[in-house]
Amino acid sequence: MAVYTEVSDEDLARFVAGYDIGDVLACKGIAEGVENSNFLLHTRAGYFILTLYEKRVDPADLPFFIDLMRHLADKGISCPTPVAARDGAMLGELAGRPAAIVSFLDGMWVRRPKRVHCAELGRALAELHLAGSDFSMRRANALSVEHWRGLLALSLDQADTVSPGLADLLAREVDHLEGAWPRDLPSGVIHADLFPDNVFFIGEELSGLIDFYFACTDALAYDVAICLNAWCFEPDLAFNVTNARALLDGYRSVRAFTDAEFESLPLLARGAALRFLLTRLHDWLRVPEGALVTPKDPVEYLKKLRFHQGVSSASDYGLVT
Amino acid sequence: MAVYTEVSDEDLARFVAGYDIGDVLACKGIAEGVENSNFLLHTRAGYFILTLYEKRVDPADLPFFIDLMRHLADKGISCPTPVAARDGAMLGELAGRPAAIVSFLDGMWVRRPKRVHCAELGRALAELHLAGSDFSMRRANALSVEHWRGLLALSLDQADTVSPGLADLLAREVDHLEGAWPRDLPSGVIHADLFPDNVFFIGEELSGLIDFYFACTDALAYDVAICLNAWCFEPDLAFNVTNARALLDGYRSVRAFTDAEFESLPLLARGAALRFLLTRLHDWLRVPEGALVTPKDPVEYLKKLRFHQGVSSASDYGLVT
Repeated sequence: MAVYTEVSDEDLARFVAGYDIGDVLACKGIAEGVENSNFLLHTRAGYFILTLYEKRVDPADLPFFIDLMRHLADKGISCPTPVAARDGAMLGELAGRPAAIVSFLDGMWVRRPKRVHCAELGRALAELHLAGSDFSMRRANALSVEHWRGLLALSLDQADTVSPGLADLLAREVDHLEGAWPRDLPSGVIHADLFPDNVFFIGEELSGLIDFYFACTDALAYDVAICLNAWCFEPDLAFNVTNARALLDGYRSVRAFTDAEFESLPLLARGAALRFLLTRLHDWLRVPEGALVTPKDPVEYLKKLRFHQGVSSASDYGLVT
Repeated sequence: MAVYTEVSDEDLARFVAGYDIGDVLACKGIAEGVENSNFLLHTRAGYFILTLYEKRVDPADLPFFIDLMRHLADKGISCPTPVAARDGAMLGELAGRPAAIVSFLDGMWVRRPKRVHCAELGRALAELHLAGSDFSMRRANALSVEHWRGLLALSLDQADTVSPGLADLLAREVDHLEGAWPRDLPSGVIHADLFPDNVFFIGEELSGLIDFYFACTDALAYDVAICLNAWCFEPDLAFNVTNARALLDGYRSVRAFTDAEFESLPLLARGAALRFLLTRLHDWLRVPEGALVTPKDPVEYLKKLRFHQGVSSASDYGLVT
């Protein structure tokens, strides 16, 4: 839930006047997105999302995100499409923050993903990877294997307060993954945060992907591994092989896995679990008194990590070569 | 900012299926309303607001509010119009709460009301009073003069921590108003909470009134007095006579004041200031640690009350007979 910045009517009217979308009819803060302020914007031309980028997004990264969404939309991916202002710019400034207007996407996110959703997700993810293959900009993944040791250092001394023995487990895991991490897998644009709340469905049909603010250039199969973690565990953290198989089959119906990708999947899934465990642990240990947002429990990802540690081959995810 | 209740897709789909508005395309929590959970609902039939009534609204009052909005809308007042389900009901249940679907109203609320807005407001308020004149249901004002002593009792012991001498001032004010309060003014449906955030404008034109959850049967001129308090003070709490005159002239261009209403205005304005001072004081003293919502500062209404205490005749508000 997030509207951090209030925008005056005058500022809003002035900002929107720079676009060819008619006068503002309504603008309502929406309780969505944790990093930015989002507003539903109704103008004479229709419904849009107005986003104000708050502190957690580096302004230097915004051109990558905005141009990527535009590129993907032009390739037919259903994602928020940045609207260009009259001067051609897709990024402006409003209330002292970088701001953009993007298309409004219908759909709702699925609280309990089922097989059919995972199959749709797999196809959409592969389509995203293919559509991104000729995107010319690059952005390093700021939360990949080479950053985990530094991230861990920030929480190491308090990790055991969350779960006894956690500090040791994490240190060993970072050692292992740094050594074993695959470095030459097919790479390109990945979403890197494709959790259920970033994927919209209308009924059982996927209607769009949102929130590209972790997107970067990295191994494509790592994106699949993130989705395995985010979509294929039950609320009790049992692994749902049916969902995993549907996700992977859906993906491979659009883009084939290489042998190396296939074999790397258990390792990538461990890495993905570790990445979210480390950031959640960091946020969990640093929640300010009286904070507005409850941080996500890191223990969920500790359990997922432990599951992947016990996996020896990609076939354990329901994947057949 | 308020979305208190999460609604599952399945529950939402089932609820909306009871209406003749097509499938759900999108549903986003909106950061508006402090008492209830509000969602922007997009269906095949268009855009709506879905409201879930949380604890602070008495379910027994809901038929009054819902039927009133329907009545006013039928009379041409631009307000949220409850949509009837296929079975005719305008109130249902969703996620264990009473719930209603109402029309989506365009417009934005004005942060710094000017003369033109107050003139529009005055006209709209008088139109609301006229449109309500043949509404058959009644609801007593639960926050009027006979409730102030009880409300004060809840905060009396701590009032001086907010402002030295406040307890005394309030006790004397309640004594005075109980004795002097006019009891036979023209009465009918009043909104009773028509603050700027409940009045939408598109440009300088009033586009709608929202949030009827304090509406009740009381002196019509008391509604005007509430608006004088809410719309006619500058941020530094100087009284803006230009705004007040515009508001009153706007009102009287649609519905004439009686002599008794005219003469009672200073007293009613004192009472309105006291009512909001008392409820704000109560909320202020009871804000839980780490609360999500910052309560409104009661001192603003203490200053307004003091202003009205110094007013001897309605002409001080810019009003001429």
